[in-house]
Amino acid sequence: MKTKTPHTPLILVSNDDGYDSPGIYALVLALRSLGEVVVCAPATQQSATGHAITVQMPLRARPVSRGRHFRGWAVEGTPVDSVKLGVTTLLDRKPDLVVSGINHGMNTSINVIYSGTVSAATEGAILGIPSIAMSLGSHALDADLRGAARFAKTISRIVLERGLPAGTLLNVNVPAVPPEHIAGVEITRQGRSTWDDGFETRADPNGKEYYWLFGEYVWDSDPLADDSALRRNSISVTPLHYSLTDDRLFSDLQSWNIPGKKR
Amino acid sequence: MKTKTPHTPLILVSNDDGYDSPGIYALVLALRSLGEVVVCAPATQQSATGHAITVQMPLRARPVSRGRHFRGWAVEGTPVDSVKLGVTTLLDRKPDLVVSGINHGMNTSINVIYSGTVSAATEGAILGIPSIAMSLGSHALDADLRGAARFAKTISRIVLERGLPAGTLLNVNVPAVPPEHIAGVEITRQGRSTWDDGFETRADPNGKEYYWLFGEYVWDSDPLADDSALRRNSISVTPLHYSLTDDRLFSDLQSWNIPGKKR
Repeated sequence: MKTKTPHTPLILVSNDDGYDSPGIYALVLALRSLGEVVVCAPATQQSATGHAITVQMPLRARPVSRGRHFRGWAVEGTPVDSVKLGVTTLLDRKPDLVVSGINHGMNTSINVIYSGTVSAATEGAILGIPSIAMSLGSHALDADLRGAARFAKTISRIVLERGLPAGTLLNVNVPAVPPEHIAGVEITRQGRSTWDDGFETRADPNGKEYYWLFGEYVWDSDPLADDSALRRNSISVTPLHYSLTDDRLFSDLQSWNIPGKKR
Repeated sequence: MKTKTPHTPLILVSNDDGYDSPGIYALVLALRSLGEVVVCAPATQQSATGHAITVQMPLRARPVSRGRHFRGWAVEGTPVDSVKLGVTTLLDRKPDLVVSGINHGMNTSINVIYSGTVSAATEGAILGIPSIAMSLGSHALDADLRGAARFAKTISRIVLERGLPAGTLLNVNVPAVPPEHIAGVEITRQGRSTWDDGFETRADPNGKEYYWLFGEYVWDSDPLADDSALRRNSISVTPLHYSLTDDRLFSDLQSWNIPGKKR
């Protein structure tokens, strides 16, 4: 694919809802004045795929466009596949920014772990590119995307100017309210809200059992939590990394009596 | 499923290679003297699925056994599905320990992010159960599993006695050498080794392009890294959590000029 001048920022847009979702379309339109926007997104819905990649099978990608401003590739794989294939193979230069979203549904607290939207941005960070995940606090396909789209442009412009430290990304969640009802922007931490979940056991028409996931969300009340900002109708901006070492337990383990342990 | 007395520890064993892999069989045999061992593992190979869960489709599970000591369920889903369905639905009491593995292939550094083996243990931790991921530094199906099996028993016994802090898990990697060549046990950090990867572009018999992932591993030289311990033929024990907030950037962001930012 031909690109413009070397000084035009190249922005790779991905998501986990698939290249044909309303959220990614709104995101592309919001970012187009900041540079050249190219989509590399899953061909089909990939919610809750986490950081899955395709290693045992080949990937396919086909060029797609939606109107004048939306062009790129639909990748028959996961969100992480889409970003990895886009950056290493489909694009002819390294993107200056990866933005994933706008996801239909919030990606806060424990949801971050399961989120394909966040994983697409994480993969951007792994590949050394400043990256942002954008999610909306509503699953409704007709939810008001304007606030999220506007802030996507604002934060993308700032990140293009300032960059982000290596190995970090921003996880942005926007309340699903009209822009004039958004209370502000808050820097937050990944919350500790959890799913109290289980499976409903049902029988199929042949009498064979199957299980369907359901769950109730248990909100973290910490005022610094991403979820708490959303509940105040604020936009939540959480800095994330993928360095998972637990430092406290690292220290504690030194004193454990493990046979063969050195030092 | 009937269980023994309430005082017998219940150990849920899972993996990402599938319930019929050599690694999970060796793990079940290694742990059986510590308590009641029940398998809830994917019906098919699920490597590199990350923390994917199945939300849009129902799950199915069927009882499986392999000889006298190996019994449980094959779940038609991901490693995380298997643990979640096992803990919430298939088992009739809460397990005292979740052990995932023994994976055929190391799960160190960046590989932790993509790993279904680690994600199964992470899901155990999310569900409030002390959890351990066990991986072997070789992909060979006939690799020497004895060292990993022995240490799985050792560390499982210790964790059953001591527990683990909430929200943490142990990620264990064992060198693929005969037990007598294992140099010891080291407490390590998640390393910063990376994949220098790309996709090979090929044409199918009809001339249509497809892409296949390949990569070269770039080793972290930090002596405290998980990978470094493995290279010294030591067993690596890394404490992990799933709290992804980057604290340094959290502080820095307070000084960023973001329109609408509070405080």
